[in-house]
Amino acid sequence: MKLLYPTSLVLDIDSLKGFAPELHSYDVKQPIPENLIDAEILVTWSNSADNLKDAAGRMKNLKWIQSLAAGPNDVLNAGFDSQKITITTGSGLHDFTVAEHTLGLLLNAARKFYEMRDYQLQSQWPQHLGGPQPDRPKGSFTSLRGANVLIWGFGNIAKTLTPLLRELGANVRGVARSAGVREGVEVISEEQLPKALGETDALVMILPGSESTNKALNAERLSQLPDHAWVVNVGRGMCVDEDALVKALNEGKIGGAALDVFVKEPLPKESALWKAKNCVISPHAAGGRPQGAEELIAYNLRRLLAGQELKNVI
Amino acid sequence: MKLLYPTSLVLDIDSLKGFAPELHSYDVKQPIPENLIDAEILVTWSNSADNLKDAAGRMKNLKWIQSLAAGPNDVLNAGFDSQKITITTGSGLHDFTVAEHTLGLLLNAARKFYEMRDYQLQSQWPQHLGGPQPDRPKGSFTSLRGANVLIWGFGNIAKTLTPLLRELGANVRGVARSAGVREGVEVISEEQLPKALGETDALVMILPGSESTNKALNAERLSQLPDHAWVVNVGRGMCVDEDALVKALNEGKIGGAALDVFVKEPLPKESALWKAKNCVISPHAAGGRPQGAEELIAYNLRRLLAGQELKNVI
Repeated sequence: MKLLYPTSLVLDIDSLKGFAPELHSYDVKQPIPENLIDAEILVTWSNSADNLKDAAGRMKNLKWIQSLAAGPNDVLNAGFDSQKITITTGSGLHDFTVAEHTLGLLLNAARKFYEMRDYQLQSQWPQHLGGPQPDRPKGSFTSLRGANVLIWGFGNIAKTLTPLLRELGANVRGVARSAGVREGVEVISEEQLPKALGETDALVMILPGSESTNKALNAERLSQLPDHAWVVNVGRGMCVDEDALVKALNEGKIGGAALDVFVKEPLPKESALWKAKNCVISPHAAGGRPQGAEELIAYNLRRLLAGQELKNVI
Repeated sequence: MKLLYPTSLVLDIDSLKGFAPELHSYDVKQPIPENLIDAEILVTWSNSADNLKDAAGRMKNLKWIQSLAAGPNDVLNAGFDSQKITITTGSGLHDFTVAEHTLGLLLNAARKFYEMRDYQLQSQWPQHLGGPQPDRPKGSFTSLRGANVLIWGFGNIAKTLTPLLRELGANVRGVARSAGVREGVEVISEEQLPKALGETDALVMILPGSESTNKALNAERLSQLPDHAWVVNVGRGMCVDEDALVKALNEGKIGGAALDVFVKEPLPKESALWKAKNCVISPHAAGGRPQGAEELIAYNLRRLLAGQELKNVI
């Protein structure tokens, strides 16, 4: 029995030893070598489409694919035989790193670091952003303290982000398909969005990409936000109507937007988002650095060998 | 008995009622009106130098000045009779807001938002900052998780900042005149700096301005930091040797600097800091928004009337 692990990230392979399978590394951008083609287990991370397509066609003994991505569309679209192969995701490996990036984007918005940078590049001191100033005037988003933060898409990333926001004094609510209280956070349903959006200082979008979330934040939803509200999207680009967002930004109908994901990535040169008012562009940088991958692989490997159900099965 | 409160910030005056003194507002940029010149109590915030000088000369009944600034150099330099007048500071009113700004600057540094902004202004996608990437490689400062943060100047702002940093997984130590453990944080003395600086990923300076802290971070200290370490200064500009910092930045001897305070403010157009490598300029924006001023004024007012010692006496 062989387990193939990728060389596209640094893994502590010692922590995977002690199990029956032989451990072999492989290059995620090349076809799987002939002597490894009989492997039963494949761990993937940033594999090329060609590599996965080749693997789907040639790896006849595959039983289990462990992706380290939270949403492994690459594996799902490669043509693996889903009847024979269990696919598990890297859900959880990106929670902290996405939450930290989101917090950074929120502070960038509240404290106007992006605007300070624009002045710095002209060797200009932005007097209006410093010195004595009113503390959190009404109709503004200048601090997380006392800010109403609404997290749309209340999964594990939101659960990691919430205590960080609360430590800074924010009032956090979630939005999900069903209402309730999750880990001490009030989660409302999408039917309650119109009222909740009207009370929001910062809307954090962490929705997965799917037909039902396509353009979830559209012109109508945007119009329900106060003029000073910020939108932060670290979920999927398709969940925001980018044209409607550009319009809302440039007409001052919302306070700003900090975006890490886009309908098309890299964001095309001609996109109006680059120069939209109070728009902050981050190049899909929130996640992309799995943390704790070895623990997940070892945990699932043990369960596979014991005939138990794996974690994060799609 | 009269208490004069400034109109330079919004105060909830209702929460100061119920005490003997009459409450009167005054303009901090104008001479004190004749009918208020006999006031015993003056609350100050961003007063002009002329206003304070005039008040020092004409307000013969003054007993107590409550400044809302953490370091009220303006009041101290105005010529008030320190034999007759008790001066209290606004220490504590700025702890949260400075801590939040500092956290924002640290995340700006770790997550490279300033560099993303430079690319955005050119409508360019900085591929090297996004997508799959190594998680916290050695000799880098890319996250607060596991980062060694050294806070030089361990007072109330540091005590407010520490739990925020710890919630994100940072290892926090302090530096002060005397070593010890304060509120669960290891605080070392300045004699131990050479070793501690060598182990630092981010150095946060929150030193007060004084003769003994002048250029505390000089060329020698900078050379003790690792090449990837960031310097964040939210204390006083004079505590950093700016020429030595520019040299360290441009020669890549440190990872970067995020500065909210400068030897001369506004930072002069000709300063080399504006364009130094990985230097982030914030226009003295960390504080400047007192929080909880009414509680402090009411607390000290009650104590004054009761003949008790005031809080934050200089």
